[in-house]
Amino acid sequence: MLHFDSDYMEGCHPEILKKLAEINMDKNTGYGTDAYCESAKEKILTACGLNEGEVYFLTGGTQTNAAVISAVLKKYEGVIAADSGHISVHEAGAVEYTGHKVLVIPNKEGKIEAEALKKYLLNFHNDCNNAHMVYPGMVYISFPTEYGTLYSARELKDIHSVCREYNIPLFIDGARLGYGLMSAESDVTLEYISHNCDIFYIGGTKAGAMFGEAVVIPRKGLIPHFFTMIKQQGALLAKGWLLGVQFDILFTNNLYFNIAKNAVSIADKMKKIFIDKGYRLYINSPTNQIFVILPDDKIKELSSKVSFGFWERYDESSAVVRFAVSWAASEDYIKKLSELL
Amino acid sequence: MLHFDSDYMEGCHPEILKKLAEINMDKNTGYGTDAYCESAKEKILTACGLNEGEVYFLTGGTQTNAAVISAVLKKYEGVIAADSGHISVHEAGAVEYTGHKVLVIPNKEGKIEAEALKKYLLNFHNDCNNAHMVYPGMVYISFPTEYGTLYSARELKDIHSVCREYNIPLFIDGARLGYGLMSAESDVTLEYISHNCDIFYIGGTKAGAMFGEAVVIPRKGLIPHFFTMIKQQGALLAKGWLLGVQFDILFTNNLYFNIAKNAVSIADKMKKIFIDKGYRLYINSPTNQIFVILPDDKIKELSSKVSFGFWERYDESSAVVRFAVSWAASEDYIKKLSELL
Amino acid sequence: MLHFDSDYMEGCHPEILKKLAEINMDKNTGYGTDAYCESAKEKILTACGLNEGEVYFLTGGTQTNAAVISAVLKKYEGVIAADSGHISVHEAGAVEYTGHKVLVIPNKEGKIEAEALKKYLLNFHNDCNNAHMVYPGMVYISFPTEYGTLYSARELKDIHSVCREYNIPLFIDGARLGYGLMSAESDVTLEYISHNCDIFYIGGTKAGAMFGEAVVIPRKGLIPHFFTMIKQQGALLAKGWLLGVQFDILFTNNLYFNIAKNAVSIADKMKKIFIDKGYRLYINSPTNQIFVILPDDKIKELSSKVSFGFWERYDESSAVVRFAVSWAASEDYIKKLSELL
Amino acid sequence: MLHFDSDYMEGCHPEILKKLAEINMDKNTGYGTDAYCESAKEKILTACGLNEGEVYFLTGGTQTNAAVISAVLKKYEGVIAADSGHISVHEAGAVEYTGHKVLVIPNKEGKIEAEALKKYLLNFHNDCNNAHMVYPGMVYISFPTEYGTLYSARELKDIHSVCREYNIPLFIDGARLGYGLMSAESDVTLEYISHNCDIFYIGGTKAGAMFGEAVVIPRKGLIPHFFTMIKQQGALLAKGWLLGVQFDILFTNNLYFNIAKNAVSIADKMKKIFIDKGYRLYINSPTNQIFVILPDDKIKELSSKVSFGFWERYDESSAVVRFAVSWAASEDYIKKLSELL
Repeated sequence: MLHFDSDYMEGCHPEILKKLAEINMDKNTGYGTDAYCESAKEKILTACGLNEGEVYFLTGGTQTNAAVISAVLKKYEGVIAADSGHISVHEAGAVEYTGHKVLVIPNKEGKIEAEALKKYLLNFHNDCNNAHMVYPGMVYISFPTEYGTLYSARELKDIHSVCREYNIPLFIDGARLGYGLMSAESDVTLEYISHNCDIFYIGGTKAGAMFGEAVVIPRKGLIPHFFTMIKQQGALLAKGWLLGVQFDILFTNNLYFNIAKNAVSIADKMKKIFIDKGYRLYINSPTNQIFVILPDDKIKELSSKVSFGFWERYDESSAVVRFAVSWAASEDYIKKLSELL
Repeated sequence: MLHFDSDYMEGCHPEILKKLAEINMDKNTGYGTDAYCESAKEKILTACGLNEGEVYFLTGGTQTNAAVISAVLKKYEGVIAADSGHISVHEAGAVEYTGHKVLVIPNKEGKIEAEALKKYLLNFHNDCNNAHMVYPGMVYISFPTEYGTLYSARELKDIHSVCREYNIPLFIDGARLGYGLMSAESDVTLEYISHNCDIFYIGGTKAGAMFGEAVVIPRKGLIPHFFTMIKQQGALLAKGWLLGVQFDILFTNNLYFNIAKNAVSIADKMKKIFIDKGYRLYINSPTNQIFVILPDDKIKELSSKVSFGFWERYDESSAVVRFAVSWAASEDYIKKLSELL
Repeated sequence: MLHFDSDYMEGCHPEILKKLAEINMDKNTGYGTDAYCESAKEKILTACGLNEGEVYFLTGGTQTNAAVISAVLKKYEGVIAADSGHISVHEAGAVEYTGHKVLVIPNKEGKIEAEALKKYLLNFHNDCNNAHMVYPGMVYISFPTEYGTLYSARELKDIHSVCREYNIPLFIDGARLGYGLMSAESDVTLEYISHNCDIFYIGGTKAGAMFGEAVVIPRKGLIPHFFTMIKQQGALLAKGWLLGVQFDILFTNNLYFNIAKNAVSIADKMKKIFIDKGYRLYINSPTNQIFVILPDDKIKELSSKVSFGFWERYDESSAVVRFAVSWAASEDYIKKLSELL
Repeated sequence: MLHFDSDYMEGCHPEILKKLAEINMDKNTGYGTDAYCESAKEKILTACGLNEGEVYFLTGGTQTNAAVISAVLKKYEGVIAADSGHISVHEAGAVEYTGHKVLVIPNKEGKIEAEALKKYLLNFHNDCNNAHMVYPGMVYISFPTEYGTLYSARELKDIHSVCREYNIPLFIDGARLGYGLMSAESDVTLEYISHNCDIFYIGGTKAGAMFGEAVVIPRKGLIPHFFTMIKQQGALLAKGWLLGVQFDILFTNNLYFNIAKNAVSIADKMKKIFIDKGYRLYINSPTNQIFVILPDDKIKELSSKVSFGFWERYDESSAVVRFAVSWAASEDYIKKLSELL
């Protein structure tokens, strides 16, 4: 059985495992007050090209989104997101559970456009009844998006410009950030991200870590008492050093970037295989998730040998399915897939 | 200056005022435990053609929507509504503030269609990832809608059928219920409403009462401990009898229906005036709110003599405006408007 | 039957009723944008000795407490209150429902002491684990307290000093404010209150208004977007002018103070009657609520002719009961009570 | 430097680490749908002496408490806990953040007494104003308590009896459950726990796991849709199998119990050392946390060589400090401590 269900099926990169084993019986202080967290923070800020800034380590994506968004928003505010955004659809209402509305804008291949965002904000501020409405207090985008697509440097800057014009922070969900940055089609770097948004996270769970996400706040002070709100949200890991160690290794010798690059390059080859075999892509994702239209009978046939994600029906006799390639993928693996297609 | 801003600009029907004056110095027990509430509840249930059921009195519309919805929903559930629904747009996120998502369906002239609702529910239940999504736990519609339109008896029954099929309650926001029931184009009665939804409210604030909304639960027991949740929501009026008295009068000698009928009939005449004067309707509302497309210069000209509601831009040189006719309207009043058009 | 259940059994002062009747068919704009609200705000600020400040009108006490507290607090903060405070015990968890903890301090006859408050805050700030705890972000006291007792000018100033030292706002629940200010034993004025707290409300529901509470914010800007948060809480009355009119009348010719003074003076006489008849006071309240210890058989005997509030058991054969005197009370009424004791 | 700060300073038991390494590059399905979770659940249920039941794996203690409590409670309900309970004091208001009040009962050495609980519930149900109060909907206790003390089998059964009498679930916070069960002074077994409460969790983070807590629901169906609510709370680990593996190992060959037994036995020796050296215990904890009263100068002297937890001031010249012994402790380690005392 071949598995392309998701990019979080394996444990962690061997170097991380090795380090975890090495220090397993050491005694570290709790809640992120240890030396590994300190070191990881510094390495991350350096990789971001930031002289200062804040870094917090959390455990998972939905948790991070809810913790960040609820901590940033004032009570009368909501967060703007694409209607296809992870927070809009697949987080069981975690944002609303903290009391805030997700204000949606129709997506274009998973993205929101600066122009549409501007129009939304303009309309809101021109609406004479807006004191009876949810104030847009933040913008959420994902990079890569839920469809594996990417914002260009220009698009990101434009969105951030709109945000600055309206004085609301831009938050980037980077659950798969590495795969986006390392795509051959991306003109965006980690440094660029760090200077073109107000808060973002570097996803570890789906990109080499056993688990963990690193929230980066480029300008200090965006969220006073964030530590306490992380605790309040149930998102504070007692053994915070487990997260610190992992990110410390990931940000040593470019490991984070190298393993993401490998995955994207393999995904690219996989995409070509699909195309060569005559299958149509649903969307031309340049990252580690490939969305293909497969006939129902092909899906059925494959299912006994390959696992992958069902996305949505395409038409009466075919469906969109997702093949996700993880940091741990090898060329051999997709060769086996190729033989089954 | 003529006022058509809204249907809640006056105090209350003179008979209510008279009664309030009459009993002003009497002593009544608090929180709805008085005889007026008791009497009003019985009269309402009778008017609804219900042998039993529960009635609760609250103070305003947004409050009632939030109190009812948050009390009905389980924590993992959200409420389905039209994207134009009052709870979706104009209640400052009151529903989300209680932790629940508003799940939107595109509106057709302010309404949702049974077919679209069914498709939404079917898709949800067929989605293999739905355990990661907000469960649709309730359906909210307004009668009349925010565009003054009406569901037919058939449409209501169809929506309720879908709700029953999926075992989720149907809630009708009746902030302007009377105007809907008394429309010449309506084939729906209060009794019909009572038998074709699971909870609804009879709006008083916009229909003859000084303030107040009466929540009706046709089948007892839908919301255990609703009283306490009303209190928790800050929605329990200490002098509950003020609400009881008002609804007691409104449901004596058909007052509620008679005054709504008068308003709708006057609105109808006003609509004809607009048409006769050559203006186009934005939507052909059969209730007490008329939506007209007016040229910008006409709007400007009128504004010094008539107040009305700005709805949205129609095109570069004209806009949609709303003229609301209240229960207190007279034919004379719209004659004066006619002269200004 | 004589009624001493509560001070919110009657409608409103006749002058208010007269005015409401007079303007009943006028058309007023909604949500507090009318001239009555404007006028009432000015009169209130003048009575408070404030050159500027903000005034908001809400409908009831629990609603006002929840709206104010949730709007003031940041997400990681809680509100300090006496363990006997109304928000701690009798509001169905309305504050917690908005996501905030009520942090309790043991009461002394319904009051908290500046010393105890300071100790609480000092301990919190000295606690090396306080980042894992709820931050005290606000102090709530009631004047008069739930036991009818009063803070002296000195006590208020001391509490406010502690609040300022720790930079947290002091909020005074003035559901029965008038009765406190007009007590013969009070050395506190409305002006004094206004200058020795950060936000408070002037209760109307229990002191001459049909319903309504006026929130006063002495220094502008304490709560940005409070209007929207009031709406979000379901606490925005569509016909806000109903509240404006009532407070406009209450703050004309000292009506609010005069009627409170009358009630307190009658309560004082009632207290003497109890003492003269040989009953013991549970607490020596100088305001309009008298707490008496009555033998169980006396309670039983009285109950068929007089209604009053059960407070708590005192010992095996007697209980604490509350007799509340409203603004509408007359001397005759307590004479009748006297005869029954 | 010797460390007795807490029992979560090390990684995980070597057998767990070994297994994690072994399967690191395997592909497992997400969200707890894997075979390790399945196996762990079965082993846990067997260890609990349960034929059926539900088991869920979460990441940390505060998260588990908030997720369980908010999922069990109805909106108008709160949770009863000791005033010293972890949820009452040290979880940053995580329970309140989900909208629920923590209703406190004074603790006796960290415990609540069945008698006091019964009185609380009796008083609540006898209170004629209880519809205005937070309904007690659940009882939370910790075993061992925050003071390291234990409920006897009798005490547990008595508390559970009261809960059953009032039809509210009993929830046991077992963050340190193993240390409690393995105490020489405990007459309680895991099987006994499973049959004398309605929901509890087996703490892994502090007892041999890298991280993780296993929630056990002895009778199926207590919390419908708990999976979705875990997600909504941000508490669903994508790589759920990481948790499954750990508990699978912990519940193989009694590992969980054996390592806890070792820690408690060492803690017991440490306690004797303190006593032998003439120090006074603050509380005679029979588990892995020892609370000692130390003179300030001794604390200062020790601090350069030993780390431990400050608990609270005892008197002017001494304080209560906590020495925590983890599953990884050795006799050698406390010998070194002994030499420093």
